[in-house]
Amino acid sequence: MTRTVEEHQQAVLGLLRYSSGFADRPADTLPLAAARGRVLGEDVHAPVSLPPFDNSQMDGYAVHGADLAHGNGSLHLTVASPVPAGAVPEPLKPGSAAPIMTGAMIPEGAAAVVPIERAEPSQFPTPSQYRGQHELTVELPLVEEGLFIRGEGSDLEAGSVALTAGAVLGPAQLGLLAACGLSEVRVRPKFLVLLLTTGDEVQEPGGPLGPGRIFDANTTLLQTALEDAGASVRRHSVLTDDPDELRSALKSVGGGVNLILSTGGISKGAYEVVKQALEDSSVEFLSVAMQPGGPQAIGTIDGVPFLGFPGNPVSALVSFEMFLRPALAVVAGIPGNRVCLTARLAEDIQSPENKHQVRRGIYIDRSGQGEGIGTATVQGGAGSHLLHALASSNALLHFPVGTGALEAGAPIAVWLLDELRGGIQPTHPSNPNREAYP
Amino acid sequence: MTRTVEEHQQAVLGLLRYSSGFADRPADTLPLAAARGRVLGEDVHAPVSLPPFDNSQMDGYAVHGADLAHGNGSLHLTVASPVPAGAVPEPLKPGSAAPIMTGAMIPEGAAAVVPIERAEPSQFPTPSQYRGQHELTVELPLVEEGLFIRGEGSDLEAGSVALTAGAVLGPAQLGLLAACGLSEVRVRPKFLVLLLTTGDEVQEPGGPLGPGRIFDANTTLLQTALEDAGASVRRHSVLTDDPDELRSALKSVGGGVNLILSTGGISKGAYEVVKQALEDSSVEFLSVAMQPGGPQAIGTIDGVPFLGFPGNPVSALVSFEMFLRPALAVVAGIPGNRVCLTARLAEDIQSPENKHQVRRGIYIDRSGQGEGIGTATVQGGAGSHLLHALASSNALLHFPVGTGALEAGAPIAVWLLDELRGGIQPTHPSNPNREAYP
Repeated sequence: MTRTVEEHQQAVLGLLRYSSGFADRPADTLPLAAARGRVLGEDVHAPVSLPPFDNSQMDGYAVHGADLAHGNGSLHLTVASPVPAGAVPEPLKPGSAAPIMTGAMIPEGAAAVVPIERAEPSQFPTPSQYRGQHELTVELPLVEEGLFIRGEGSDLEAGSVALTAGAVLGPAQLGLLAACGLSEVRVRPKFLVLLLTTGDEVQEPGGPLGPGRIFDANTTLLQTALEDAGASVRRHSVLTDDPDELRSALKSVGGGVNLILSTGGISKGAYEVVKQALEDSSVEFLSVAMQPGGPQAIGTIDGVPFLGFPGNPVSALVSFEMFLRPALAVVAGIPGNRVCLTARLAEDIQSPENKHQVRRGIYIDRSGQGEGIGTATVQGGAGSHLLHALASSNALLHFPVGTGALEAGAPIAVWLLDELRGGIQPTHPSNPNREAYP
Repeated sequence: MTRTVEEHQQAVLGLLRYSSGFADRPADTLPLAAARGRVLGEDVHAPVSLPPFDNSQMDGYAVHGADLAHGNGSLHLTVASPVPAGAVPEPLKPGSAAPIMTGAMIPEGAAAVVPIERAEPSQFPTPSQYRGQHELTVELPLVEEGLFIRGEGSDLEAGSVALTAGAVLGPAQLGLLAACGLSEVRVRPKFLVLLLTTGDEVQEPGGPLGPGRIFDANTTLLQTALEDAGASVRRHSVLTDDPDELRSALKSVGGGVNLILSTGGISKGAYEVVKQALEDSSVEFLSVAMQPGGPQAIGTIDGVPFLGFPGNPVSALVSFEMFLRPALAVVAGIPGNRVCLTARLAEDIQSPENKHQVRRGIYIDRSGQGEGIGTATVQGGAGSHLLHALASSNALLHFPVGTGALEAGAPIAVWLLDELRGGIQPTHPSNPNREAYP
């Protein structure tokens, strides 16, 4: 049975949605700074208004409403006591102007703030001038009511929704919660994945490599990819090609696991451990019209969602990016979609017409030059074992079914993998960084 | 003194480069999975080749070089013992073909692998067939030498550089180190920032809000923004407007701090605590032609780099994005540049001609529709206190000096802040996610 990429994407999404255990798990309560990158578990209503009170947007003079209403041209006012931020000022009397600092509470009666730059004199009196014998005066232009006053609740009113459940908590969102006076936040639990790597030839990193064997790259690769996508991972030591060993690992899956993800052992060989261990289960073994990552397994094991990826590291990562990461984005709410851009192919390419080929390559932004889009250069061959080439890439290059031969210059879709330093250089003409960081 | 954005970017970059203590700190050694997102501290040479030995790219039959050289049309061969992955096979004899699994070592003498699908019969013999009395044979097409053999070192040769110092360690890079057999990696230390928030009106989150006071958003906002950019943060309790208190906090800065970053107290008011505390220092207080974030302070305190950002949370975040994040990217090597795109303005905008205005807004990708670029809509007003509007945004919208009035439809530069769920929807026509996730 062969599926299209889109069909398998839908199947994986459906499988993860089925993982009802995830929705049932209680929310975690975390201090704000520990919740960076997490997903908000419930709507948060603002306990206070933002700003909490009318305050000044400028360093300047608070002017009374009556003076604004009756003055003409300019105002000659007596200087009242200054209003620092953090204080509760006395009411302002008509005929007087109070020096007021940015963020300070607007005194009762005041209707506008005139910036200090527009006052004459254009500097606040010094403490010694206040202590002098003469009454201090200031000349101010007549301004419209409300000028430079930030109204209580003008950003957010107390009781209204500050953030909705499902918001991803970045700096601005966490800063907002802090501004609301909250020190903790309830976040959705992380999606927990049990990771199983199989293969008699596969050996844990560290120590000398046995003959005919390779080191396990998949556990580290997929653990960190899953963590990047907001999931948490339970690792398992590498499993051999003995189906009984895999069956017993599957029987000891602890509670709280939302997905079991295996690599290897699902293809057409004579020793396909995952296939053999699960031959009496409902898990389907199928072929997706994709390269790499064609062989795939999907189903449930004792009610726990199960995905089997092929064993080559590049196949495993492409499978993750194409199927699991987008589905996790939907189910767990982490922004998992790669930035997708159009780029010009830097060389001729041949792609199998009946498969969606995903090549690894380097995207270079050239939006500042000529045509306004970047270029994409393939790194390494199509082989799914080329991990070094993958690690030197910053993008996945898509050649959907039906592509066949493409000439240099053809537009293709690329997904940015943002791990590479300098992978995404801001070279846009109106990008202020451009000159600063050539 | 007024600086351009570009001039201050250069100044901040110069200041951070000056932070020689950073380069001198020893590298941290971490287990691979704990090094996610960190920066490689030194070149890593591959201790083994990848692949470590010639191996099969397919499940199929390994065929002897002599048979390939002398055969014509098709080959009738005796079936030898199968070669599983992880085993060291016996040499292959001419006239025989060994069933070989993906990843298994190529037997001595074998020169190509014919995929099982092209064999007749097209399935591997079962164990009982092997135990039968008749010699098993297989018919294979004549193929070219080297077919479906992954040569030892074809991805990476032992001794060559697997990753260069400065590489950011994402899943592919960490997977590659694991494939090389490494279990630990040396990474650059994190850039350590001491964060100071000032203001008599500023109160720690938690507990009831005092009259005339606001909760501290900046510490949480900047801590998480710095952590997102790969730095680590030492927090300090909120400081009052008493210059002596700030001076004593600055005197107790511990070793290892690469940057002191303050918010508030650098403007033109009568109570500017940072300005007052540092009036006898070499720290410069200046104005950048930017809105928000105009007032800025820069210098060193006892040899430690110092930056002062304005106190409004939006000003602080915009200052961080415009000045500190790009400089950290250069100095600490974390990819800190925002993805920069061109978008069409969704509404008419008025921007001050003599300032680089940075508005907050929502970018919507419309690359699948018509003109191929997205739209940008401003969120909230220009006021630097509008934190809720910032938390509802997914992009910074740039209106450089000289912009003035812009009409809806005009192209502008946007930087993507990627915290928002669904902020960047892949709607590109050839994006495989499009149909799957409508």
